[in-house]
Amino acid sequence: MTVHSSVGAVTQVVLLSDAQRENLPSTTPMANHRIPSFMAADLVIQLSCTLKTKPDRGSFGFGTVFTDHMLTIEWSETEGWQAPLIKPFGDLSLHPACSSLHYGIQLFEGLKAYRGDGDRLRLFRPMLNMNRMAAAAKRACLPAFDQSELLECIRRLIEIDQDWVPRSDSASLYIRPTLISTEPTLGVKKPSRALLYVILSQVGSYFDNEAEAISLWADPKYTRAWKGGTGDCKMGGNYGSALFAQYEAVDYGCQQVLWLYGEDHQITEAGTMNIFLHWINEDGEEELATPPLDGLILPGITRQSILELTRKWDEFKVTERFLTMGQLCSALKQQQVKEIFGSGTACVICPIGHVTYQGKSLKIPCQGENSTLTSRIAKELTDIQYGRTVSDWTFLV
Amino acid sequence: MTVHSSVGAVTQVVLLSDAQRENLPSTTPMANHRIPSFMAADLVIQLSCTLKTKPDRGSFGFGTVFTDHMLTIEWSETEGWQAPLIKPFGDLSLHPACSSLHYGIQLFEGLKAYRGDGDRLRLFRPMLNMNRMAAAAKRACLPAFDQSELLECIRRLIEIDQDWVPRSDSASLYIRPTLISTEPTLGVKKPSRALLYVILSQVGSYFDNEAEAISLWADPKYTRAWKGGTGDCKMGGNYGSALFAQYEAVDYGCQQVLWLYGEDHQITEAGTMNIFLHWINEDGEEELATPPLDGLILPGITRQSILELTRKWDEFKVTERFLTMGQLCSALKQQQVKEIFGSGTACVICPIGHVTYQGKSLKIPCQGENSTLTSRIAKELTDIQYGRTVSDWTFLV
Repeated sequence: MTVHSSVGAVTQVVLLSDAQRENLPSTTPMANHRIPSFMAADLVIQLSCTLKTKPDRGSFGFGTVFTDHMLTIEWSETEGWQAPLIKPFGDLSLHPACSSLHYGIQLFEGLKAYRGDGDRLRLFRPMLNMNRMAAAAKRACLPAFDQSELLECIRRLIEIDQDWVPRSDSASLYIRPTLISTEPTLGVKKPSRALLYVILSQVGSYFDNEAEAISLWADPKYTRAWKGGTGDCKMGGNYGSALFAQYEAVDYGCQQVLWLYGEDHQITEAGTMNIFLHWINEDGEEELATPPLDGLILPGITRQSILELTRKWDEFKVTERFLTMGQLCSALKQQQVKEIFGSGTACVICPIGHVTYQGKSLKIPCQGENSTLTSRIAKELTDIQYGRTVSDWTFLV
Repeated sequence: MTVHSSVGAVTQVVLLSDAQRENLPSTTPMANHRIPSFMAADLVIQLSCTLKTKPDRGSFGFGTVFTDHMLTIEWSETEGWQAPLIKPFGDLSLHPACSSLHYGIQLFEGLKAYRGDGDRLRLFRPMLNMNRMAAAAKRACLPAFDQSELLECIRRLIEIDQDWVPRSDSASLYIRPTLISTEPTLGVKKPSRALLYVILSQVGSYFDNEAEAISLWADPKYTRAWKGGTGDCKMGGNYGSALFAQYEAVDYGCQQVLWLYGEDHQITEAGTMNIFLHWINEDGEEELATPPLDGLILPGITRQSILELTRKWDEFKVTERFLTMGQLCSALKQQQVKEIFGSGTACVICPIGHVTYQGKSLKIPCQGENSTLTSRIAKELTDIQYGRTVSDWTFLV
């Protein structure tokens, strides 16, 4: 793949709908850049002259096939952010001492572009991803940037690779913004160089068989996150350290880990998803509950949207609260559990059918299709994502 | 820098001294390879035709200047380990989705080559590093390898770049083995590809002013490691997640973090070092104490050597035990603390002079030079490292 042409600076004016304006970060109005940041107006575009063959519809897994272009933005302590560059997708050239490879100074985001109603491309609440990325950058000692400028650069990248957004309402284009240290020295210190880049990948279902409820393995011997750690940030170390437990779950015949915390075995997350329990609680109330954002829990955008959506319905109690395995076991015994599901950008909603805990296989109720809360939420969210429902959560590309 | 020549496979026979034989891993005798591994006998060497100018003695910091060559060994699930390759030092070419950059699937080691007595090059207990690296590889779901084969490849690399080992007994050549996932897809899963590489860097002191005692900031709000995590492995995520606290320590006028754990504020590590307390304990005994290897603590090779060395002296009690801030504060009040120091490969021994805790600055006694335990241990260890004392901890290059 070679560079075709340097089109030069793109000075596109962004016109925002009211709905889009709602998505702007409150701390960094676009008109008043207080953070030294790259600017979408400085975007340099180098188009690829050879375009890849797109895979057959339905044949892509999760994050294995990438589009023709990528966005890269370099930063250094002395020079600040360089002009954003859209260029042919290709390998990164990294110094072997670079501290993203030694000390995990790295973070990522995940969001999707959906092709839906009117053949338009839509993002779902993308400023929430941009803001979460900025928060993780602070925690990882990586440089700050203007979130709106990054979103506009991503929008341009998607526009260029728009033919890659699947014509399917069970597939989408996964967007992976990444920010890594490129500090080329071995001292454990704040990076003096960094690289922000964005790659795009066609995705189908995250799990092999999306319709089926998954099984979880709950064992307190591994901990995903802890107080004073980075469990609420999408930093790489959270995931690499979780892999070993994931394969132990598989050894026990389960698909994912149900992450517990503390001596009372608090339920925190499921695999790389947030978790929800729909039940009749200790006070006899119908409740949809998910663990609170106490620093251990990733502030999922699907999680937040489910909370906001179901609170708007006002049909049952919706609570962010601690949940323990003891409470779950007791509620299962009393047949008070209606459903349990995971949520995340990759899977949207994922029903949970079994939990293996302390040598027992706990069967979780999953009601018939179309009658469950799980499928109702999934439908409402995907209707917004694919533009079948008009919503101010939609951001048009 | 360009490739000069491919010298072809090196089939060197390694002759081991009795002392070196002691260093072999018990689980993988060299004569009987049970783990599918690369072999040092397959080593391919491509020498650089342009050699870099070496920096002036004393002008190097920590890990900023690298030698002329590096070792790389590729692995894939389908092909296993490829032949080890020594080639000119240069950038790595990595797929932008590679999971070492997204999910922190990475680990490293750190050891040093010393130029000492008789102008010979020595390593210090290198099989302990190789074995710890193998343990971390297992935890990170990265491939296993034969530790002795890796050591022999590293020995060959040092031999080739031997002119880079400083002629100084306050400097050395730092060896950084690294193992990263090169899986080029975005699913969170066991890597199907990996890269093991080793780079070398001239190093002086780790801290700017090595002779001076350093100050620590102890605040329980950040946690380095926790039960069920990866604190006992040199995985990247442990370091990146610690950086933010390190800069908060600097904001509070301290140099490093004293990492606490749990509600009783257990003392665990200092910055990236293990920690030792020399004191008169609660029972009135003179004791050298360090936290036990309970999964939270990195099993440091300097730590282990200090324990073995001082136990051999048999002059005071040497204990692996839990120590809390409460105990430390009370012992300081009663003037029962003799010294506190950190230990690690980078710094060897580092006296600690102050701890800031709960708004108070605790002054730690540091006795006069040459009379302290710190300087006695440092002398005994460096005498072995530089070959002034004959020891079975020495491995000749």
